Amino acid sequence: MALPEPRLLTPGPLALAPEVKACMQLDLGSRDQTFRQVTRDIRISIQKLCNAGPDYSVVPVQGSGTFAIEAVLSSFVKPEDKVLVCANGIYGDLAVKILRRHDLDHSVIAGPITKPISVDEVATCLDLDPRITHLYFVHCETTSGILNPLHDLALLARRRGVISIVDSMSALGAIDIDARAAPFDVLISSGNKCIEAPPGIAFAIVRRALLAENNRVPPTYALDLIDQWRNFEDTGEWRCTPPTHVAQALRAALRALQREGGVPARRARYSAVCRELVAGMRGLGFEPILRPEVQAPVCIAFRSDRLIPDGDVFAAYYQHLRDAGLFIYSKFHTESQLSGWLHRADTARLDR
Amino acid sequence: MALPEPRLLTPGPLALAPEVKACMQLDLGSRDQTFRQVTRDIRISIQKLCNAGPDYSVVPVQGSGTFAIEAVLSSFVKPEDKVLVCANGIYGDLAVKILRRHDLDHSVIAGPITKPISVDEVATCLDLDPRITHLYFVHCETTSGILNPLHDLALLARRRGVISIVDSMSALGAIDIDARAAPFDVLISSGNKCIEAPPGIAFAIVRRALLAENNRVPPTYALDLIDQWRNFEDTGEWRCTPPTHVAQALRAALRALQREGGVPARRARYSAVCRELVAGMRGLGFEPILRPEVQAPVCIAFRSDRLIPDGDVFAAYYQHLRDAGLFIYSKFHTESQLSGWLHRADTARLDR
Repeated sequence: MALPEPRLLTPGPLALAPEVKACMQLDLGSRDQTFRQVTRDIRISIQKLCNAGPDYSVVPVQGSGTFAIEAVLSSFVKPEDKVLVCANGIYGDLAVKILRRHDLDHSVIAGPITKPISVDEVATCLDLDPRITHLYFVHCETTSGILNPLHDLALLARRRGVISIVDSMSALGAIDIDARAAPFDVLISSGNKCIEAPPGIAFAIVRRALLAENNRVPPTYALDLIDQWRNFEDTGEWRCTPPTHVAQALRAALRALQREGGVPARRARYSAVCRELVAGMRGLGFEPILRPEVQAPVCIAFRSDRLIPDGDVFAAYYQHLRDAGLFIYSKFHTESQLSGWLHRADTARLDR
Repeated sequence: MALPEPRLLTPGPLALAPEVKACMQLDLGSRDQTFRQVTRDIRISIQKLCNAGPDYSVVPVQGSGTFAIEAVLSSFVKPEDKVLVCANGIYGDLAVKILRRHDLDHSVIAGPITKPISVDEVATCLDLDPRITHLYFVHCETTSGILNPLHDLALLARRRGVISIVDSMSALGAIDIDARAAPFDVLISSGNKCIEAPPGIAFAIVRRALLAENNRVPPTYALDLIDQWRNFEDTGEWRCTPPTHVAQALRAALRALQREGGVPARRARYSAVCRELVAGMRGLGFEPILRPEVQAPVCIAFRSDRLIPDGDVFAAYYQHLRDAGLFIYSKFHTESQLSGWLHRADTARLDR
């Protein structure tokens, strides 16, 4: 513990601003009006963050992003539905894993982690299988940092009458999202990525029609997004004791994002860091795995001939950076967890 | 917000020690060795807290206590099993609600919230229904503060070869629990009750045999306790991004509990406060709903003729205390959420 203050270069949790962390010092009653106001502020700020109108509602979920993903899939996909999952990284795979667990019907478009999802290919899949009711994709894949075409995919889903569910964990806060231009049905994200809040609260931005018309009782009580939404609307309260300190920090982080100049300013800051990082790493023999046109300035995955394929060499590299107080993702990845689906990337990638 | 620092008299979250809250200021990489050590320390401290030997293992779960309850029930109860639930308060009812949601077979012994669960009655139920495989009960019901007979119920279950699952949310940390004397199979609790940590992490203390022999795939990915346990054992890591700041505070709170003198010292402190509170409230015309012999010194429910049955009068009372910086549970309870099961208590009860 004689280390310097950690500088987290991991995809989340991140290094936080002192004024955000300072907001984890007040004990609030979780059902009192002061805390209900914290929750209300969070919900409104997130709605504004992606220019979502009154036809959307924000539903916070305690836990990591995965908790919100599972809450969304198990609350909105019914046994008679079928989900088309686009997978070009491990968070596409994660949705498949969850759908399997819930025995929900799905098919998958799998592609290499270095190539954005093809809108044409998705359109063809929708043409070929009229049973598809939902389209699921990851906005910015943490695996590689690749940006998938949110706008075109959301529009396509809308035109086809298919419900779109977007994992925007690694994008919201740093990448422009406009619900009026890209009319998604559900967009999932978490406080501890580009919003720069501590981990503990994720959320879904959901088209109200989906919440109101849903009469399915989700299979899990704690992850029942619809019941939780009704409770927020009726009482302003979380059904189960929420992480009150993390919530206060999340509100502070959302305010700090506004003060910084919103998403454009944050994107500009991340882009500058990204350029500097890539230039520096290149000088040391590390090459980003993505072409610059498809790289989001959030997570960057590098390959290096010197680190392949020996995991021990990577471990030494991790430790070397760690000794300097710099923390990258701690694992050496050579392939997807669901092997066979994805291109072998043969790269040490930064992962959440 | 010109209020004084809130003094939480709610059943959780609680008012925390400054040195515990101060531990939410360091950003740690969630997969780095420093954070893995935090997790390891938490798991070991909790195991020691209830004198659980190497035949037990502690599995933290992010989220409120309810997340851990649902994780336990959905991970350890199989479709062919049957659970006998003892319900003398709303947290007994909660288990029933969750079992229903998962379509798991169960029966219920319901009793008034003022009477501890009868061991004889449970024994009779086990005699009458040989299909029962699991016994579920709440150790200290937050509803009333009543203490149910953990020791005798755990021994009974053991003698009958039935798996015992205990919700000890409101007891662990302030009430002695000795896994060698009261050989429970699973005991569930949360950091933000008597351990005095911030909300965000709950946990289950599980007999290892149950974890090792379990070959069911639980229906939920995020709440899969068995997969999470395997991950802790194999890598020391949480599967999904954990609330790293809350975890550090939980470790600090567990250390503070040891420094205070462990469970006996904390129980003595709570008992002194409880005596003072009851004496003072009596002078104001409030009477505890429980007989002192069955009252745990953790949560106390009072009745007052002046507050019944008018919820508005209670709201004014809540606001009056709030203005002085004192926060009690914000709701006026007259009956259980699952009406008809329980005695009408006709009391304003402190509730979590």
